[in-house]
Amino acid sequence: MKNQERIDKYIQLIVHRGVQITVGDKLIIFSMVENPEITRAVVAEAYKAGAREVVVQYKDEQISRLTGLYAADEVFDVYPKWQAELYTMICEENVKLLHLASEDPEALNGVEPSRLMRLQKAAQEPLKTYRSQLMGDYLTWSIAGVPNIAWAKKVYPELDEAAAVEKLWDSILYSVHIDDQDDPLAGWDAHTARLQHALEQMNDYNFKSLHYTNSLGTDLFIGLPEGHAWEGGKSTNKTTNTKFNANMPTEEVFSLADCNNVEGVVYSSKPLSYSGVLMENFGFRFEAGRVVEVFAENGKDMLEEMIASDDGAGRIGEVALVPYHSPISLMDTIFYNTLYDENASCHLALGAAYPTTLPASDGKTPEELKAMGFNESLIHVDFMIGTADLKIIGTTQDGQEIPVFIDGDFAF
Amino acid sequence: MKNQERIDKYIQLIVHRGVQITVGDKLIIFSMVENPEITRAVVAEAYKAGAREVVVQYKDEQISRLTGLYAADEVFDVYPKWQAELYTMICEENVKLLHLASEDPEALNGVEPSRLMRLQKAAQEPLKTYRSQLMGDYLTWSIAGVPNIAWAKKVYPELDEAAAVEKLWDSILYSVHIDDQDDPLAGWDAHTARLQHALEQMNDYNFKSLHYTNSLGTDLFIGLPEGHAWEGGKSTNKTTNTKFNANMPTEEVFSLADCNNVEGVVYSSKPLSYSGVLMENFGFRFEAGRVVEVFAENGKDMLEEMIASDDGAGRIGEVALVPYHSPISLMDTIFYNTLYDENASCHLALGAAYPTTLPASDGKTPEELKAMGFNESLIHVDFMIGTADLKIIGTTQDGQEIPVFIDGDFAF
Repeated sequence: MKNQERIDKYIQLIVHRGVQITVGDKLIIFSMVENPEITRAVVAEAYKAGAREVVVQYKDEQISRLTGLYAADEVFDVYPKWQAELYTMICEENVKLLHLASEDPEALNGVEPSRLMRLQKAAQEPLKTYRSQLMGDYLTWSIAGVPNIAWAKKVYPELDEAAAVEKLWDSILYSVHIDDQDDPLAGWDAHTARLQHALEQMNDYNFKSLHYTNSLGTDLFIGLPEGHAWEGGKSTNKTTNTKFNANMPTEEVFSLADCNNVEGVVYSSKPLSYSGVLMENFGFRFEAGRVVEVFAENGKDMLEEMIASDDGAGRIGEVALVPYHSPISLMDTIFYNTLYDENASCHLALGAAYPTTLPASDGKTPEELKAMGFNESLIHVDFMIGTADLKIIGTTQDGQEIPVFIDGDFAF
Repeated sequence: MKNQERIDKYIQLIVHRGVQITVGDKLIIFSMVENPEITRAVVAEAYKAGAREVVVQYKDEQISRLTGLYAADEVFDVYPKWQAELYTMICEENVKLLHLASEDPEALNGVEPSRLMRLQKAAQEPLKTYRSQLMGDYLTWSIAGVPNIAWAKKVYPELDEAAAVEKLWDSILYSVHIDDQDDPLAGWDAHTARLQHALEQMNDYNFKSLHYTNSLGTDLFIGLPEGHAWEGGKSTNKTTNTKFNANMPTEEVFSLADCNNVEGVVYSSKPLSYSGVLMENFGFRFEAGRVVEVFAENGKDMLEEMIASDDGAGRIGEVALVPYHSPISLMDTIFYNTLYDENASCHLALGAAYPTTLPASDGKTPEELKAMGFNESLIHVDFMIGTADLKIIGTTQDGQEIPVFIDGDFAF
């Protein structure tokens, strides 16, 4: 089957599984200026599915780069009111959000990291309600990838532009289980059912802590809060009680760490592109839940700016398990994009925890959340730590040690 | 000289003459998703000229079309708050505006005209301050064209896509007097000095009325209000007292009509694309300043919706003189875009008058403005009436009849 036919299926998948458009929905799409064609096709499919209105905002990273390099310094301390108003609308009307992600992993390399972080800080207060609704699944949201030339060439530098884009399409379509069968949704549905099995086992064990070791030098102890829950696959919008798939692809089951109880050293196993800046071969040392040391071959400035944004930015908010021998991982490709790389590797996230992973967090004050081990932060940045020899030993509430991962894969 | 080098000059012209960027300026660019490259080049040049910040909003007409056709009906009665907030920022910070116009003249053909007009009506109240600041030159604004494929193919249907775009670039660059000299601004400056001469003559005559006739059947009497002024070429931002060029190209000298004193029949000499809908071979009959009859081969529905939007929408707000043998006109091309077609032909505008053309209008109430003959409206739509045989006879305050146009050109 040709890529174009498979792309048509992908569009179906995005609209009918990602944001699950039904009659009367309002949808906002954040897309890239390089991708008008697929954006229009998604808009058309959403209207066909009964959307009341579809709004599109196109981003141009090349212009973000020019602004990052040349705008006046005070620009980075102000979040524009008109943009805040857009997010207010999203919350007030429970607008569904779709990100057609297509970032050049190095778009903002060379821009002063403190400028990028100040811009994020400036957004903190205006986007507070939006962020908490998003993290708590009070909104429907989904992220799906679309190739662009700069990204494709970074992933497949040995290919020419057209071949690299074609190959990246292949990988993206493979990652969401689009195959040659007629039903574009069948492969996806079978996959999310499989994820359910892994998360049920993790919930049954109800571990007190996890201990990570591998040959990169990782030796990390992670406490898990009382009452934590493992999640994966489908999500539920709590405002409207409708389903959605936040990430396409998704291979992870995830929960939260006790943000006060992480100790030891962890090393990244893949590069990380964050805010358009690439960070490579980095690691952290934790004491009492907080990063106390940063190591990095590339991007140390950005990492340090990042963890300094607020108290929770240097603490772990998410723990995610992905088998080393999962389909995306087996492609043996560094995608330089979190959506794909996080689904090919066990990972942790610095910053905010998802409220759904600690149901008892609902309605608690910041002080109570901190005491429960629930991390709050402006940021939520996944970084990959999975390797072929990763070992994770879980300790149960009654002190039993159970292998969770052996040689990079689930032990059970 | 190759087009790319001439395009580089055009970018200089837009930044240094159109919006005249100087240190500390904030600029917003409204562009089309088809044109990221030239948009980025303008952004880079604006930063080079010292802009404090450049914001870009990309529009996608194909998505506007899908929304026009398929969105829920109530969508067209609401102007989004976040968009209104963008225009509030423009007014509050005196942000300079640049439109890189690149419309497909038929993008919205087939969309219910009443939907498009309801959307414009919904914008009326939220954008009131913005519109009055724009029309009154309290903001700096400029419009310049950029080819896109659909537009180029409409203008040059006999050429293939690449050749049509190349040819449209040729025409656009020719229209703004970019030539093979090194200085990109010299041709433009020489031209605006020439426009000054024509408007001074019109101001010296201080006509009481103009009488238009030609072989299309036009026989129209237009009163000119006491104290009217003819304008052309450069404008001045009244808030910051800085210069700008609102239209690139510009070949017109213009003033306002007495909106209560227009009588007779006028026929269009070129098609008009408005809101993405094409109208052809149309005309109007006026009585006591107001349209009482609409004729049209194509687009009659849209014209009728348009003039029904408010009382001023069926009255003349602008009278503009352009010689039939002006450079753009001599290309003998229908551009299906007002920016080019209005500068190749004498034209009138239905809707709002420019406050600068009646200095005494400053600070007056709506009732006083109406009594002075100053037209107010939500719309301002130029339509072309110039022909090779157009005759315009002016009547002076003391009753003398003076030929203003003979055989399509200035008589003096």
